[in-house]
Amino acid sequence: MKSSKAKVLHQIAGRPMISHLLSTVDEMQPARKIVVVAPHMDDVRAEVAPAETAIQPEALGTGSAVAAALPALEGFDGSVLVLFGDCPLITLETLQDMAAGLEGDDNTAAVILGFEPEDPAEYGRLVVAEDGTLDAIVEYADASEAERAIRICNSGVMAIRGRHLKDLITSIDNNNAKNEYYLTSIVEIAKAKGLTCKVAMGDEEELLGVNNRVQLAEAEAVVQKRWRVSAMMGGATLIDPASVFLSHDTRLGRDVVIEPNVVFGPGVVVGDGVRIKAHSHIEGAVIGNGAQVGPFARLRPGAVLAEDVKIGNFVEIKKSDLEKGAKVSHLSYIGDARVGAEANIGAGTITCNYDGYDKYRTDIGKGAFIGSNTALVAPVVIGDGAIVGAGSTVARDVEADALALVRAEQVHKQGWAERFRKMKLRLKNKTS
Amino acid sequence: MKSSKAKVLHQIAGRPMISHLLSTVDEMQPARKIVVVAPHMDDVRAEVAPAETAIQPEALGTGSAVAAALPALEGFDGSVLVLFGDCPLITLETLQDMAAGLEGDDNTAAVILGFEPEDPAEYGRLVVAEDGTLDAIVEYADASEAERAIRICNSGVMAIRGRHLKDLITSIDNNNAKNEYYLTSIVEIAKAKGLTCKVAMGDEEELLGVNNRVQLAEAEAVVQKRWRVSAMMGGATLIDPASVFLSHDTRLGRDVVIEPNVVFGPGVVVGDGVRIKAHSHIEGAVIGNGAQVGPFARLRPGAVLAEDVKIGNFVEIKKSDLEKGAKVSHLSYIGDARVGAEANIGAGTITCNYDGYDKYRTDIGKGAFIGSNTALVAPVVIGDGAIVGAGSTVARDVEADALALVRAEQVHKQGWAERFRKMKLRLKNKTS
Amino acid sequence: MKSSKAKVLHQIAGRPMISHLLSTVDEMQPARKIVVVAPHMDDVRAEVAPAETAIQPEALGTGSAVAAALPALEGFDGSVLVLFGDCPLITLETLQDMAAGLEGDDNTAAVILGFEPEDPAEYGRLVVAEDGTLDAIVEYADASEAERAIRICNSGVMAIRGRHLKDLITSIDNNNAKNEYYLTSIVEIAKAKGLTCKVAMGDEEELLGVNNRVQLAEAEAVVQKRWRVSAMMGGATLIDPASVFLSHDTRLGRDVVIEPNVVFGPGVVVGDGVRIKAHSHIEGAVIGNGAQVGPFARLRPGAVLAEDVKIGNFVEIKKSDLEKGAKVSHLSYIGDARVGAEANIGAGTITCNYDGYDKYRTDIGKGAFIGSNTALVAPVVIGDGAIVGAGSTVARDVEADALALVRAEQVHKQGWAERFRKMKLRLKNKTS
Repeated sequence: MKSSKAKVLHQIAGRPMISHLLSTVDEMQPARKIVVVAPHMDDVRAEVAPAETAIQPEALGTGSAVAAALPALEGFDGSVLVLFGDCPLITLETLQDMAAGLEGDDNTAAVILGFEPEDPAEYGRLVVAEDGTLDAIVEYADASEAERAIRICNSGVMAIRGRHLKDLITSIDNNNAKNEYYLTSIVEIAKAKGLTCKVAMGDEEELLGVNNRVQLAEAEAVVQKRWRVSAMMGGATLIDPASVFLSHDTRLGRDVVIEPNVVFGPGVVVGDGVRIKAHSHIEGAVIGNGAQVGPFARLRPGAVLAEDVKIGNFVEIKKSDLEKGAKVSHLSYIGDARVGAEANIGAGTITCNYDGYDKYRTDIGKGAFIGSNTALVAPVVIGDGAIVGAGSTVARDVEADALALVRAEQVHKQGWAERFRKMKLRLKNKTS
Repeated sequence: MKSSKAKVLHQIAGRPMISHLLSTVDEMQPARKIVVVAPHMDDVRAEVAPAETAIQPEALGTGSAVAAALPALEGFDGSVLVLFGDCPLITLETLQDMAAGLEGDDNTAAVILGFEPEDPAEYGRLVVAEDGTLDAIVEYADASEAERAIRICNSGVMAIRGRHLKDLITSIDNNNAKNEYYLTSIVEIAKAKGLTCKVAMGDEEELLGVNNRVQLAEAEAVVQKRWRVSAMMGGATLIDPASVFLSHDTRLGRDVVIEPNVVFGPGVVVGDGVRIKAHSHIEGAVIGNGAQVGPFARLRPGAVLAEDVKIGNFVEIKKSDLEKGAKVSHLSYIGDARVGAEANIGAGTITCNYDGYDKYRTDIGKGAFIGSNTALVAPVVIGDGAIVGAGSTVARDVEADALALVRAEQVHKQGWAERFRKMKLRLKNKTS
Repeated sequence: MKSSKAKVLHQIAGRPMISHLLSTVDEMQPARKIVVVAPHMDDVRAEVAPAETAIQPEALGTGSAVAAALPALEGFDGSVLVLFGDCPLITLETLQDMAAGLEGDDNTAAVILGFEPEDPAEYGRLVVAEDGTLDAIVEYADASEAERAIRICNSGVMAIRGRHLKDLITSIDNNNAKNEYYLTSIVEIAKAKGLTCKVAMGDEEELLGVNNRVQLAEAEAVVQKRWRVSAMMGGATLIDPASVFLSHDTRLGRDVVIEPNVVFGPGVVVGDGVRIKAHSHIEGAVIGNGAQVGPFARLRPGAVLAEDVKIGNFVEIKKSDLEKGAKVSHLSYIGDARVGAEANIGAGTITCNYDGYDKYRTDIGKGAFIGSNTALVAPVVIGDGAIVGAGSTVARDVEADALALVRAEQVHKQGWAERFRKMKLRLKNKTS
């Protein structure tokens, strides 16, 4: 990854890839979760907490990684899924298939996950017997012509029957070129012990491994595609799905329309009939039924828009409640505020909520009208139905239904502009 | 669609899909247009007006839908095209091909539109005889192995000779599992009557049916691709065509360059040599030759930019005329205004055009210079060549060539900031 | 191209396509570069300068184009690469392969570049002999069934041994339907002279010819894809690579994250650990380690951000130095300025740097705090640690640690807003 960060902490759709995987695993409601990490990977341990971690002292292969988890599994008799943190897109359905493969027949030691990639390339191949059991996993380098013609490839992912786990894992040796312990060896070992292995099949897409940032982007695309399809099938129109970026928890109502180039961060809930216009950026916001947002709108965490609120272009809303039908149509920053129902906030309005140390609240009453280019110096209250004149800097509370105006005298200097231009032109002529 | 809206009213490229279809039909200059709707679909009837509508009382199949239109076609002898509102991308060329198929040979009862999808899946197949006439439409479920190998699929779309229409349609029965009247039955019926049917071929893309929002997005992509290619072949450079969204009526001049992420709403006319920079949003605007717009510009309806106008970032223009060479470079809202030739509007200028009830005009003269962070309280006139000082709120007309200044005295409190910081730090220390 | 501009001057990724080609050629460190142009193509000559140009008086085919360069190559004995200005994506590796093909064996007159397009369509085919030499180039129209089955197509690009160049080129005749001189004829001519031609192979992608703006967009996509992959493999995360537009000289540090919809113009250098958020536009800017930019940020030429600077939404920075930890979080324009370390620039701050004729500097001290909606009228100095009150227009220098305030008195008119609304409603009722 050419990174100072552990690979599994690189993010896909706003979450570390390891968390995507664990979140899928959680849907299985597993009895135990053990994450095997290298020494000093405290950042990974912190990320996966409260999942248990086991330390693999040296990178001696996948078999050694599973061996590192054995003490934590002492006496555990259930099915053990062995997954890879850099292969985070595996689906619940596939995990369930693998687990189901271990049920019933007591003689099955493991279920190996295969897949049929479009280009099998140099993947190891799964040699499946006529009775459907797995004969062998053959590395590409060792494979015969006939074996290379097999299209079912080894994903590395497997489910192992807990009762056999320790026995199988501790039987793996490192008699190979790299002196590593390969987890795949257990197929041969099981066979030697009179046990069988089975095969389950996954999709190529869910088995995408992330080893560099090109693959990281591919993984992001897979996740986003899943979410986009799900959003559309759920009743939202995405005019250009490929340019809408969703978050794992984005909730979209019915008959929502999302225009092109909209980015959702985490924590967004969108009501029915909302239109989010192009070039918008939304995170941690609640958007009420019938609201309109954008284009070029930014809703930051704590923005809560009631029904029929309208947010226009170049507007930023942060930690503020906008009540029913309130309008902030252009070029404004509303932070730490309440905007009452049907209030109208003019273009260029800024809530001055920060003094360099603390944040203060602005409270704008129902039906108030804030003139354009106004600064509201918090803490400040604008009463219901009050009007603030354009260009004001309001530092004192305004009573309900009052007009507040802060404006110096307008002074005109006749002919000044003309004289200024002449002077400027004289100077230009001199210097050139 | 999981929607409270009729399917054919869902929009593709800014227009209901039924309107896309009718707009193509209109290019045929048909003698009659009859839109068959379900009862209570008043919204669809309103949308398609002034096209005639016929009501299909019950959803008893495509044959019953055409039957609903029969009374309106009583005595009509021409060719009748049967199209589907949720299959809106069919091209004029294909409609013409189908109509042409009915010409000449009097014995042809209908022309059925086939297509060769990449994956024929479970589409019905068209069995074509050696002489090119259509033998039968075979549903996938009823098809033999040999018939399933046929790659020409049934689109459902057809042209029927008006003289045979009533006879054929009223002969359709509903002796099938679903007790529906299938329009496709007319092939068999025609054959029994000694008439023939022909086949015309369409593209898979134009025959895309829209049954959910994933397909709606696919249809949008098809339409946008057509328009983008047409714009590029017409002499506009689209740096990243996939991120430019055009409207059915977008008119682009010669040597126009459109950067990535530009959205056009309806009613835009762009002159020659214009550059529209990234992240812009344009609707209902006229952009003169040589103008530059964006990045991050929004032009709303009624924005009329003359030659060589320059609109910069975070600028919104609405219902305003900008005359030759005028510049609005940053962070401004210009609404209901005229900006004279070569006038320069400083960053952060806001026209205060609205008092909560009415809109008022701002008139800025030729060569005027509006200082930054200025509010122009409409109605107001800034004379030719006038200068407005930065930070002013101008509520009174400014004479030509005058300087207008609205500014309170600048007061300094020495050491105040230092004392403020100390006080803040003391408070922090106390509370922590 | 339907353009008033020469084809080779149309831009790909911000540079004329001819410059892309010449830039690749330059990596070969060629002894000579001669660009053949039509008469009156002064704009092309200016663009390619200081490369030599030769004028082809009439468009009489590729052979005549090379003939136009002969006088300039008089006596030149090295390898001559013949490239096409509208085929600008050819890679250094391919050029080197071709040049290498001429080395050693003295009998080789030329190396012809072939490629295997996915669809060979009507390209000319390369007929390769068993010994690997080129037998003939056969035009599609003249090709036999067997020849059409050949998948290696002629790109037109070739390397010619300098010693044979003049002899070969001057032997080309125009005895063909179009009366043109075809460069490809030299294969036959060389054979007749007892010389051989060889074949080198290129990728279809690098041999894309640009004859219209659809192909121009395809070429842009190829170039962008190369740069994106290179950026990702170099250690930058591009969340949605397809929506990030890079420039030929974009330099990205390690562990940089680029969110969707970011456009880089030329001259950008990004440090380690920087995050560039969605919808940003960056050109000619230097971004220090750990800085955060966007969403909706625009950095223009001369923006220099030190470590840990934070630029937020709807902010434009031009020709300004922002020192360590400075923050400009919202809706501001900072131009021709220095912003000291840890200074905080409030929302809606505008540097008024232009008087219509000249630009002036704003100097903001270390730790200064500029209140929201403030205009700083340059030239002006805000001292270290000074505070400017919200809504001020500052036209005079502010001392270090002082508070500067420019604010008129806040006037309230009780009940005015209510009377105004009543009046407005009365008027509405009258007129309706």
